[in-house]
Amino acid sequence: MTTLYYHPLSNPSLYPVFIAEASGLDYTRKVVNLQTQEQKSDDYLSVNPFGRVPAMVDDDLAIGESSAIGRYLARKSGSDIYSEDMREAALIDQWVEFVVHHIRINVGRINFNRFIAPMVGAEPDQASIDLGLRFLADNLPHIEVALSGDGHLHGDRLTLADIALVAAFEPQHVAKIDISYAPVLSEWLERMRQEPWYQAVHTHFGAELGL
Amino acid sequence: MTTLYYHPLSNPSLYPVFIAEASGLDYTRKVVNLQTQEQKSDDYLSVNPFGRVPAMVDDDLAIGESSAIGRYLARKSGSDIYSEDMREAALIDQWVEFVVHHIRINVGRINFNRFIAPMVGAEPDQASIDLGLRFLADNLPHIEVALSGDGHLHGDRLTLADIALVAAFEPQHVAKIDISYAPVLSEWLERMRQEPWYQAVHTHFGAELGL
Repeated sequence: MTTLYYHPLSNPSLYPVFIAEASGLDYTRKVVNLQTQEQKSDDYLSVNPFGRVPAMVDDDLAIGESSAIGRYLARKSGSDIYSEDMREAALIDQWVEFVVHHIRINVGRINFNRFIAPMVGAEPDQASIDLGLRFLADNLPHIEVALSGDGHLHGDRLTLADIALVAAFEPQHVAKIDISYAPVLSEWLERMRQEPWYQAVHTHFGAELGL
Repeated sequence: MTTLYYHPLSNPSLYPVFIAEASGLDYTRKVVNLQTQEQKSDDYLSVNPFGRVPAMVDDDLAIGESSAIGRYLARKSGSDIYSEDMREAALIDQWVEFVVHHIRINVGRINFNRFIAPMVGAEPDQASIDLGLRFLADNLPHIEVALSGDGHLHGDRLTLADIALVAAFEPQHVAKIDISYAPVLSEWLERMRQEPWYQAVHTHFGAELGL
């Protein structure tokens, strides 16, 4: 019995949910209400003492942190979205990490200041938005090159790396992030968002909350 | 033939070097001169197109990104600093990711503004320092609890998680980061820095550059 704890506006927490769908795992997903601080409740802290989403419970194994959960789900499923060959696994891991550290973090900077801050009454930080936009522009050319080959970040099939990239860009529209200067990625994201593993979660980012 | 490309002031790039030492791998390490922008030279871009340290070349496999390299080196060595059991691997991965996303990034914020910015003539950002200090204070209690058990983040032996924690705190002294409010971690770091796998790299952070 595998349970995933997530929130539909947390893109790191959507990553393992997409993986569970793409790898055909039998699992249950539970929304953790971040608006009411459910992630700090005693019940949830007994699942994930870090008090964050995502978290996963698989029988007696409980872990937090999105990449660790994603890798475990992929290995458990035996799906070819990851690899048991350590050399190929390293290539996939490299791309997941590139996406998390150089793409997701910068989408997050922009998203926080343009979308989340106004919602929670915080002051948007334009310098942080500008930094995010600049770092995205620095890093997206690597993505354009990689996707121009076989249409995947690694090899010629869907892997954790591609799913990480889709999850990283989940808040693209609500955060009004213009990536028209990266046409290969732009078209690719629209296509990925029509895939069954995406549509099984939601039709678009924020749909669960009526956005 | 395994080659690691790193810079002694880049703590993410020290992580795989420590792992290579701790796991007894036969390897060569090469310093990439970040001061002269060697990471953007044609020669280095042919090793790592991302133009960053660390990078690893192992025969015909070339990858970037520190956690991916670290995991690969540990698996290749067969050392028990990682695990071939997917459940135990997930627990170790979880801690590595916790350290990278909630500790290293905040040490990095403080280090950039207190140590790097003055070196390169950039304006330090006090708000970023304050954020780093606050997030560190929020997250170190989890580390204190974990290390108070068996003296390791996972289980009763040295793993990738512990090495990630040591690497994350490499710039602690040059960035004048006071963590005396975390006495278990403070004492543990001093002890880890005396370990053979640490001393084989340097006596202390920055020693190679006369710091």
